[in-house]
Order: sequence, then C-alpha cells, then structure tokens
Amino acid sequence: MSTPFLFHPQVAPWFRATGDHLQLTLFTDGDAGFSEVLLRLEPDNEEILLPMQPLARQGRLQIWQITLPLPASQEQHLYCFKCLTDEEQWWLHGAGVTPAMPGRETHFRYNSDHRPPHWVPDQVFYQIFPDRFCNGDPALDVRSNEYDYRGQPVVQKAWGEPVGSAEDGSSACEFYGGDLPGIDQKLHYLQSLGVTALYLNPIFASPSNHKYDTQDYYRVDPHFGSNEQLAQLTRNLHQRGMRIILDAVINHTSAEHPWFSSPEGANVSQSSPWRSFYTFDAQGDYVSWKGVRSLPKLNFASEQVQDVVYRADNAILRHWMRAPYQIDGWRFDVIHMLGEHGSAQGNTQHVRAIRSAVKQENPEAYVLGEHFFEASQWLQGDQEDGAMNYYGFAHPIRAFLAGKDIAYHPIKISAADLDAWLHQTRSRIPFANQLAQLNLLDSHDTARFLHLLEGDRARMTLAVTLLMTYIGVPCVYYGDEVGMQGGNDPDCRRCFPWDSTQWDHLLHDHYRRLIQLRKQRPALRRGDMQTLYAGDHTLAFARSLESDLVLVACNRHPSNPRDITLPIWQTGHSTQRFCDAMTGQPIDAINGELSLQLPPCSVQILVAS
Amino acid sequence: MSTPFLFHPQVAPWFRATGDHLQLTLFTDGDAGFSEVLLRLEPDNEEILLPMQPLARQGRLQIWQITLPLPASQEQHLYCFKCLTDEEQWWLHGAGVTPAMPGRETHFRYNSDHRPPHWVPDQVFYQIFPDRFCNGDPALDVRSNEYDYRGQPVVQKAWGEPVGSAEDGSSACEFYGGDLPGIDQKLHYLQSLGVTALYLNPIFASPSNHKYDTQDYYRVDPHFGSNEQLAQLTRNLHQRGMRIILDAVINHTSAEHPWFSSPEGANVSQSSPWRSFYTFDAQGDYVSWKGVRSLPKLNFASEQVQDVVYRADNAILRHWMRAPYQIDGWRFDVIHMLGEHGSAQGNTQHVRAIRSAVKQENPEAYVLGEHFFEASQWLQGDQEDGAMNYYGFAHPIRAFLAGKDIAYHPIKISAADLDAWLHQTRSRIPFANQLAQLNLLDSHDTARFLHLLEGDRARMTLAVTLLMTYIGVPCVYYGDEVGMQGGNDPDCRRCFPWDSTQWDHLLHDHYRRLIQLRKQRPALRRGDMQTLYAGDHTLAFARSLESDLVLVACNRHPSNPRDITLPIWQTGHSTQRFCDAMTGQPIDAINGELSLQLPPCSVQILVAS
Repeated sequence: MSTPFLFHPQVAPWFRATGDHLQLTLFTDGDAGFSEVLLRLEPDNEEILLPMQPLARQGRLQIWQITLPLPASQEQHLYCFKCLTDEEQWWLHGAGVTPAMPGRETHFRYNSDHRPPHWVPDQVFYQIFPDRFCNGDPALDVRSNEYDYRGQPVVQKAWGEPVGSAEDGSSACEFYGGDLPGIDQKLHYLQSLGVTALYLNPIFASPSNHKYDTQDYYRVDPHFGSNEQLAQLTRNLHQRGMRIILDAVINHTSAEHPWFSSPEGANVSQSSPWRSFYTFDAQGDYVSWKGVRSLPKLNFASEQVQDVVYRADNAILRHWMRAPYQIDGWRFDVIHMLGEHGSAQGNTQHVRAIRSAVKQENPEAYVLGEHFFEASQWLQGDQEDGAMNYYGFAHPIRAFLAGKDIAYHPIKISAADLDAWLHQTRSRIPFANQLAQLNLLDSHDTARFLHLLEGDRARMTLAVTLLMTYIGVPCVYYGDEVGMQGGNDPDCRRCFPWDSTQWDHLLHDHYRRLIQLRKQRPALRRGDMQTLYAGDHTLAFARSLESDLVLVACNRHPSNPRDITLPIWQTGHSTQRFCDAMTGQPIDAINGELSLQLPPCSVQILVAS
Repeated sequence: MSTPFLFHPQVAPWFRATGDHLQLTLFTDGDAGFSEVLLRLEPDNEEILLPMQPLARQGRLQIWQITLPLPASQEQHLYCFKCLTDEEQWWLHGAGVTPAMPGRETHFRYNSDHRPPHWVPDQVFYQIFPDRFCNGDPALDVRSNEYDYRGQPVVQKAWGEPVGSAEDGSSACEFYGGDLPGIDQKLHYLQSLGVTALYLNPIFASPSNHKYDTQDYYRVDPHFGSNEQLAQLTRNLHQRGMRIILDAVINHTSAEHPWFSSPEGANVSQSSPWRSFYTFDAQGDYVSWKGVRSLPKLNFASEQVQDVVYRADNAILRHWMRAPYQIDGWRFDVIHMLGEHGSAQGNTQHVRAIRSAVKQENPEAYVLGEHFFEASQWLQGDQEDGAMNYYGFAHPIRAFLAGKDIAYHPIKISAADLDAWLHQTRSRIPFANQLAQLNLLDSHDTARFLHLLEGDRARMTLAVTLLMTYIGVPCVYYGDEVGMQGGNDPDCRRCFPWDSTQWDHLLHDHYRRLIQLRKQRPALRRGDMQTLYAGDHTLAFARSLESDLVLVACNRHPSNPRDITLPIWQTGHSTQRFCDAMTGQPIDAINGELSLQLPPCSVQILVAS
C-alpha cells in the first residue's frame, strides 16, 4: 500500500504525563488494516516493544493508546511506533512514516525534567533595538563628538533621518537617542498591540549603538538610562503582567573592557589578573570573534570567567535576575560559539552550567539561544529552552514567500518542501521545546521581511499569519507591525515612526487581530501541529489542544486560486462546524472532510464553532 | 528541475587528507546549470561558505574541488555542499539531495583523529561459537553430570546431535566439546576459505556453553583449553598473518562470580569488598541484565569496577592484549547498556574511557560494539571503531530478501527502500567508520540466513554477494559457508559438519570466490559506495577507489528478468570496458552508460577491464 496516515498527538487529551507514567496515543487510518501497533522504547539504550490498545473507532480514525512507566534513570525518553498488517509494517517517528525502523536520532523524545518555563508559550514577544525605538529622555542622548568609537567621532542624528551605511563605517557610531524611558513610555502602545514580553538588544555600557561590545556588564549604558531606570522598567512591566529578557553577550567583550585594555588589562600586561580571561597565541596576539579585533573572545576554560559570567554569587547572569531588576530570562548571543581557548571546545558543558546557574536563580527563567542555523543539539532540554528560530521558521518562510535564503541566494521550494523543512526541524527536539522556540520573520541582523517582499502586503499578511499561528512563540521585530522596511543591517535598524500617518494601518490591524486570536485560542499557544495538506503553493495545518481546534490554510500563488479538501477526521476532533476566524463566515465539513476555496495569495483561519 | 545528480566521493584521488588540510570533491551533472558550488562548514559551530573550483568537464560529469585547512580545535568536522543555479539551490549532505539547507546531524563528517585501525577493512572475519566449531581435544570435554548449571546437571552430547530447546532450559547446559585446539587445527581450512580474522564468542571461565556469564575474566574456560593454548592460538594466527578478537562481556558477570557469590561476595555480605561492583536496591535486591537473575549488572560508578575492567595496569581488557596473548581487539557485548547504578547512565564517558585504555595498549586494536539497533552515537570515532552491523546491514538485507524483521514481523521493502535504509545508516557516521563496520548476515543471536530463506540458495547467493561487496568488513558466521541452517538460538548454534559430503559445495565455492575477489579488488575493501540504480526489485551500486571500479547489480524478483541502464559517468571513471567478475565475459558501456540484462533472482559483479 502507499504510505498510510499515522499521527502521534503530543497534547491533552491524547498525551498525559502523570507522576512517573506517560500516556501515549497513536492515530491511524482505520481502513489501513493494522492488526497490531507497538510502541518502541529504548530504556537504558535497549529496545523494548510494547503493544498498544485499540480504542473504539471514531469514524475513519482508529486510536491506539498505552500507559507506561518512565525509568527514572533517563533524562530523555526516546520512542516511536511500529504498525503491523498481515503483510507489512510501517513506522511513525520524528522523520515521518517509513516502511522500516528509523534510527535513534529521529525517535520522538520526551523529557521528564529539563522542561521550558510554563509561561513562555503564552507570550507574544517584541524585539526592541533600544537606540531606535523611542527617545524618552533627550537629556540622555549621545552628542556629536562626545567621544570616538573605533577612531571615529560619534554622531547624533535626528529621529527618522536615514541611517548611515555599513561600508563607510559610520553605522555603528551614529545615535538616535532611543532609551529605556522611551520604552517605558510606550508600554501602553505595546500592550494595545497585544505584546506581552520584551526582548531588548544589549543595554549594558558600550561605546557602539548596538552594544554588542560590552565595557561594563554591571551598568546600563548611561545613554540608555540608569540601573534604576531598568529596575523601574521591569517593575512597570511586571505590574502589567508583562515580561522582559535581555541580551547576554558573553562570548566576547569589547576591546575597551577594563579586563582587556586597562593598564592592568590582559592585552596590556602579561601579569594581568585577567590574562586568563582571553586567549593569546605564542606571539601574544589575541583571539577575537570571527577575527573582529574590537571583540576579544572570552576563554571559558578560565575558572575566573566561569565565576564572573555565571558561577559566583555576584555573577553577571545572576545579578540582573535578582531584585530590583528581576529580568525573566536571557537571550544568549552566538551561544554555540562560546567555549575554551579561543574556540567552541567544551561548549556543551558550559552551556549546561549556564543553564543551571540561571535556573538556580529562577527556575522559570527563559534560556533563549541565538542560532542562525540548525540548533537541535542545544535544544534537547538540558541546555536551552528555545532558540531564536531562524533555521526552523524564519529561513523556510523567507524561502517559501520571498524566494531568497539568508545569503540572498535564490531558493525555490514548494509548500511540500516547506512542510518537510518545518517538520524535520520540529521533530528533532522535544515537543515542550517546540512550544518554546522563538519564531521570528526578521531581526536586527536581517533585512526586514516586508523589504524582502518588496512591499507586497498580501504576502506579508501570509507571513504574519504563519508567525502567529505556527507552533512556538511569536516575536515581532519593532516596527514590522506598522510596515517598516529596510534592508540588511544597519538599514533594518531605522527609527520607529511614531507619526502614525506613516503607518500601514491595515497591516497593524492584522497584527493586532491575529495576536488577539492567539490569546483566545489555547490551540495556537500550546496546541499540537498537524499538516493536513502540502502541495506546490498551498499549505494547510491544524493546531489542536483538548477541545480547541484551529485550521490554517494558505495559498502562495500570486494569481491562481486553489481548491483543497482537508481530512479533518485525522485531527481526532469530531467537530463538523467551522467558521472563518476573521469574517465569522460559517463553513461545514462533510464526513470529516472540509472543502476550501483559497483565492490567490490568501490565507484562511478556521475555528471550530 | 527535478532532483539533480550530486555525489561526494570520499576516497582517493578525490578525497585527500594531507597534514592539516583536506581536499574535497563534488561531482555534479554538467548539464544541471550550476553556476556556483559552495562548501558549507561550521568551524566552532559557526557557518562559513567557501567557493569550490570547477575542474574541466569529463563528458557529462562536472567536478568541483576545494582544499581547506582544518581547525585544530575540533575533533570532528561537519560539512555539506550548496549548489546554485540562477534560479534555485540544491544541497548535498548525508541524507541526500534537498532543495534547502540540511540540519547539522545530516552533514558529512570527518575526523582528523579517532580513526579506526588501518588493517580492519582488509579483513574477512569468521565468527566462531567455540563449543560447536571443532573438538580438538576430547580430554577437555565437559562430561555429563560433571556439575550443575542453574540447577540442572550439564550434559555431554555427541557431535552433530540435535541441539536442545530454549524452552526446556536444556540449551545452555549441553556441551559438544568444541575448544581452542579445535580452532587451531582448522586454521588451514579457514585460510583456504579466505578468512583472515577470527571473532570468538566468550571463552573465559563460565559454567554455560555460551559463556556470557563470566566467572573468571583472567582464565580461559578449562573446557576450551588453557591460557597457554590461547597464547598458542594467537601465535599461530599471527604467524599466518591472521588476527583475532575476543568477546568482552563486561556489562554483567555470572551470579557465580566470586565478586558476587563467594563468602565475601557482594550478594552475601554488605561489607563485601566488592559491594560497590553491583547495584542493590533498598531491599538489598540486585540489578541484573534485563532481569535475568544469573547475570548481575556491573556498576561502572565504582572506581574499582573501572580499575578492574579497563583502568588499572592489570585490568581485564589490558591483560589479554599483552604478551603472550596479544589479541587484536575486543567485541563488546551490549556495550550501549553499560553504565552506572544499574542503568546506562554515564555510558558515553565509560565507553570513551574503555576506548582510551584499549588504544593505549595498542593503537591499532579494533574496538567493536554489539548493537542490534541503530548505533551512530557510538560510531562517531571517539567511542567504537565499528559495530556488529545488524541495523545497517543484517536487518535491511533480511527485510529485502527474507521479508522478515528481527522480531519475525512481516516487512516489505523495495530495492529503493533498501537503498534509503543503507544510505541513512552510512551517512550518520564518518566514512572511515563505515569501512570498519562489521557486516553480517546472521550470528549466534539470530536464525541463520539460509534458514530464513527456507534454503533458497539463489537468494542466499544474492545475500552473500552483498555481504562481500558492500562497504564494511564482512563476517561469516561459522558454517554459513557450507550451507548450515538453524532457527533462532539455540538452533543457530549447531555443530559444524566436518564431513564435507554434507556441505553445499556450490555455496562454499561462491564464498571462496567472492572472498578472493574482495582481496583482489581494493575498491571492495576500501572503496567508496555509490548507488547507480534502485528500483522495486533491483539495486545496483559502484565501489570505487583510485583506478579500481567494481559494479554490483542484483535483481531480487523470483521470476522476472530486469533490464537496467547504469550511469557509469557518475562514478568519475572514464572506463568503458567491463567484464563479469565470475565468468570473464566482456561488456561495454556506451557514452558512459552500461546496459545490463539481469535474470530473475540473480546478481552480477562487473569489474573495469
């Protein structure tokens, strides 16, 4: 037979962890002729096969269940499913359905411990590049010629003035005056949009406008405000029920950090108390991040570095998690590169130790890693809770809708390719971590998505809908919601246009309504993810949690409409009545199948009604 | 366009490691329109893309090359290839060709260090279950009632008498008298067959016939011979240029080991000096292997266990690698299960330490792990050199030719499924480790392959041909070469029939000729592996090394012949003249394509001539 339908739901009511037991469920096509379904496990790395029990058929759907004890000696439990007919067998695992047993790497995985914070999947994050979001206190502004940055005098520019170019080196030393008081003043705007959590690009003392070159990890940059103003901001956020995470730039420091360049600094004196903080070669030359001389790389082989970054009582990461700041987590810059002796050696061990320290301060803190590419080895639970999901969301959506990859090379993928890409990145990490991935369309490090689409609002609407309905936590890069454009860094770091006549109000409204929908629908925040259709230009999927069910169907084609039929029976819901979440228009399924007409370049969200 | 041809050869002249540089090559279809080919690397976990240089076209084949320095800070180098046309991109990586970037886990991988011994790929192994191979000294035989084993008196049986059944418990306490002197007497037979290396099932003092329950790790079982007779056997083997590896059963001991059950034993006295060797629960009950009470599990959390097994100067593993024994390596029983406190906890760390100890004694020792299922995490170079390749060879060949999986469930796979299965298991481990995988059709733990085929010699010939021509080291289970049959353990452990009138001489001759061919053809021992055709019943592949090229094409179908055309141009060889390795019959390729007519249930081996 051709590949049969098999699905493993990973949410209630189908998936339940109770104490040291796990209830697992498998959906099969009741007409596929499976006489036996086995759960495959590897406790202590050795295979066992356990028979699953068939429940009563639900129309065409056959449901199989098993409840099993979890061995306490394992942190992560691997499993998959073996389905037998009289003549053949089919396996369901992370990589899909195959006629033979999969490898361990593609098994489903479940962690009893090492689980991401419960609050994370309920958030809508908003990323702010502080110098460009809002100038709340002009008294804090950098003045032209106030100091030199890498040999150039700094420049104060007027709000909204075009940004300089990366080529002439002017981009890192121009300042627009955005600051923490500015963010504080815009909390009402953000809450009206629906935002619940902030991620701020670096805010600690640093001579550049991006502040990825830290001079003092214990002080908010004075041009952004004071430590007390950060405390005030977090208090105000928390009073509103909002959260905040900060950018931890601990792979490297600024070359102007006292550890490095003070008279006692590591690069000045071989007997420096901080000599071990950095890595020097036989010629006395230091290792820097990707060879950028202004960013000397910290050496995590040094016990002192471990102490000051995460281990000691007053470690940087601990300091800002405590009163009066109490930030809710950290986004770790280039965390995969961090390591010993100028390399990534020992990375795993240090990232685990960093996680432990952070969770010791607050077990509900969010540990978020920056990874431009595939990062499943950091996302097994014992290291990060989630990643900035470039590889598993931003890149594939960009490929599908903009036809460009991150290097601006042409890329052509079908909706089926998109589905395969999304699926394989999800399937390598535990479900709880899938829910805690930070999905994004763009950031301070990429061109804005609308820019990549050359201003095509219809496609942007598709992209935003996928951002708000896909599994994981959405993160809006400041200004995307009002239609800001801009190419690669630094053009993507323009000033937020507070003059609302410059906004794309339709787009803004779309963001607001989708965020509202996400808040109303638990299935969008914590639900399972199930592909129902993936063709050339058309993708449809279900998000499902307990009695809640949301369907999303999109057609990328610019001029062709597309009729599709969705096998709703595969979701385990018996609902036959749906309505369009945006228009309220009702639509009925017939015998577990829902027929849709998708106009060109459109997306429909249907909710069970 | 449809998925284009892309291939990455991993042998000379295309792949070269010189000092700290690597030369890599990519083959593409010259008609596919690639304007740029990039090598993707992740030094210190961060992406770099390097342009590859096109060489002159070779007919339809376009060859791209790059030479790059290897960063010393990494043990394993990951890479893959990105190919660009004006409109799209294609990636080649371990999992195949895809329109988008793969994850890290499916990148190609290369180790500068941690490489398997050079001698291993040149071997043909022969596995011997000592009690059943040859009785060389009847004076050593176990006598009926000589002792009790698990409450039953042992039984001496006549050579060739049917084996007892597992059900009535008689199977482990019946003895046929095979011994080390018997093996010694048959070295000429084995060498005539072409065998170059032996793997012996356990031979240390133990009350059972299988000896997986060790009573004394420092003494050859007296019914198999003396320590001196083992020394004599290894001397004789080495004089013939042959090798030997032994079975290390260190996950558990016999419950009759003095550490466990002597008056001072761990299970007798809580103050036993060996108490920490095992794991006891609060009720004083001990952990045993899979709950088999006669096999208490060793606790590798114990420093004493680490010392006696691998660390101390007189450790078990070191002892037998030294004069006068000097065995050439170890096969580690259930190595994935070994660990701390009655579980597999800490497995990685202990297997690495075991490897270090073994390599310290002899850097050219073979570290072979037993794994019934997928084992790539142990095969990255830092743990094992190779595995008993059940998952990546025995299981898929059994599925393809016998239609049964290891649990005797029906399984139906096409030649394309077979190819995908083989490919994915290869692609997860470094090429050097692929060459050091121990391929087998069956063993003391499975039914014999000919038995699974219900005596179908034509299919057996296919299986044996795949065993001798596939990438990895072939291992013949004693007696398979003369047509021995037998179902699951203990039936697969019958006595070798030394009366040659009982042999299948055609099969024996086939083994001998294929082994000869393997010895003549470096491509079969160390060559690359490239699929040229994979359909429903038909599979064809090339093995290639420098100027040597061998093609293998098989048709499984019992009654239908099959015509196929092989794209020889994809191998990088310009040879157009081939001949059948068995019959010498010539056959010519035309414009880089070779047309073959494969009779029903047949296999052809073609060599460049």
